[in-house]
Amino acid sequence: MNEQPVPGSTERTRIRRFSEKSVTDREVLHAILDAGTVAHVAVTDDEGQPYVIPVAYARHGETVVFHGSTGSRLFRRLAQGTPTCLTVTLLDGIVLARTAFESSMNYRSVMVIGTATELVGDEKWAALDVITDQLLPGRRESLRPMIKKEVAATLVLSLSLDEVSVKVSTGGPDEPDEDITWPVWAGHIPLITTFGEPIPAENLDPAYAEVPEHVKSWKVYG
Amino acid sequence: MNEQPVPGSTERTRIRRFSEKSVTDREVLHAILDAGTVAHVAVTDDEGQPYVIPVAYARHGETVVFHGSTGSRLFRRLAQGTPTCLTVTLLDGIVLARTAFESSMNYRSVMVIGTATELVGDEKWAALDVITDQLLPGRRESLRPMIKKEVAATLVLSLSLDEVSVKVSTGGPDEPDEDITWPVWAGHIPLITTFGEPIPAENLDPAYAEVPEHVKSWKVYG
Repeated sequence: MNEQPVPGSTERTRIRRFSEKSVTDREVLHAILDAGTVAHVAVTDDEGQPYVIPVAYARHGETVVFHGSTGSRLFRRLAQGTPTCLTVTLLDGIVLARTAFESSMNYRSVMVIGTATELVGDEKWAALDVITDQLLPGRRESLRPMIKKEVAATLVLSLSLDEVSVKVSTGGPDEPDEDITWPVWAGHIPLITTFGEPIPAENLDPAYAEVPEHVKSWKVYG
Repeated sequence: MNEQPVPGSTERTRIRRFSEKSVTDREVLHAILDAGTVAHVAVTDDEGQPYVIPVAYARHGETVVFHGSTGSRLFRRLAQGTPTCLTVTLLDGIVLARTAFESSMNYRSVMVIGTATELVGDEKWAALDVITDQLLPGRRESLRPMIKKEVAATLVLSLSLDEVSVKVSTGGPDEPDEDITWPVWAGHIPLITTFGEPIPAENLDPAYAEVPEHVKSWKVYG
C-alpha cells in the first residue's frame, strides 16, 4: 500500500482507485518506459471525439518522443498543442483467483498527460535516433544514414514526463479468507515475449545472409 | 493496396495514411479482437484532457465489452456518454529494413469509436462472463460463481462495432530499389508470447496443487 504521491503526479494523475498499485519511484517510471515498444496516444478532434493511436516511442531523458507522418491529420493536431495522453502498458502475467472478481492481470503501466511539442532541427534528428535505438538496439550504425527528405516527411513529437502516473501489479491473487477454500488451483502465470526465427527479406543479398550480432543479442523483448 | 472502405468505417475512421494497411473483412476485425487481452480506452474530461486507460475487454457479438470500478471517475464519465475510442494492438514482429525510415513493426490493430453504454441486469452478468472467458478460457465453471455484491461494484460498458478501423501490417521490409544494396541483413523477426511456469498461490490447498487442464491448454496467448 503506497499513499505517497508520485513525483510528477498531480491532482489529474493521482491514482484514486487501487492506490496500492501506485509507484513513487522515478527509476521505475523510466524502466517501464525503456522496456516497452508501443505506446497508445490520444488525440481529440474539434468535436471532442478522442482517437487512440498505437505509436513507436522512446524515452529521451525526462521526455517521451514519438513520431508520425507529417501527412497525418491527427499528428498535426498534436503538434498544434491539443492536450494528449500517452500510455505504455506491459502485460506481465495472468492472475488466477478462485473468483472471476479477483482474477486479473499483472502489468506495469505508465500514463503521461500534457501537451506535445513538435521537435525541429538537431533535436528532431536526435529524437529519431533515440526511437530507432529503442526499437532496434545496436542496429543504427549498420543502417544507411537518414536523409533530409525522410526527416522532412516525419513529424516528431516530445511529451514531458511532468505529469505521470505509474501502476505496477505483481504476484498472485489477493482474496478474502472466505474464498481461499474454494476447490480450484489458484496462482499466477507469467507471460513471456520472445523473438522467433529471423526471416530474411526476399531480396536480401546472400553476402549478408548471416543474422548480425546486434540482432542475435535480442533474446527477449517487451 | 486496398482502397475499399471497411464495412463499419466512416469518414471519421477511414484510414487516410497507409491505406494499403487497411483491411475490409469483418472476420479479420473479429479475429483481432478475439486474440487480444488488453485494450486502451480514451476518456476525455470537462477540460478536453484525454486519458488513455488499459482495460480487460472481450468481443461480444458486434460489440466490445469492458469493465471498471463503479468508484472510478473516468469510468463513470464513459457511462454518462462521453465519446470514446477503444484500441487493441497486437504486436507481431519487428521489421528490419536497411534504413531507419523503412524499419517498422508488424502488428494488427483495431480502433473502435463511439459512445459506450452501461450494461445492467442480465446483460451485465452475461458481459462479465464473456470478459472472464476471454481472459481465462475454460476456467469460469471452476470458479466460485459471481455474487450480487461483486457485480454491483463493477461498471460494465458496451461499445458497438459500428465505427471501426482495422490495420494489419505483415511481412518484410518494403524499400526503394536504391536502398536494397545497402550492406546489412534485412528481414523481419516474429514476436511470440507464451506462458511461463504457473506459480501457485502461497495459500493454495495442496489438494488442488495440480495445474488444471483448462490452464494447460493455454499454450500461447496474445
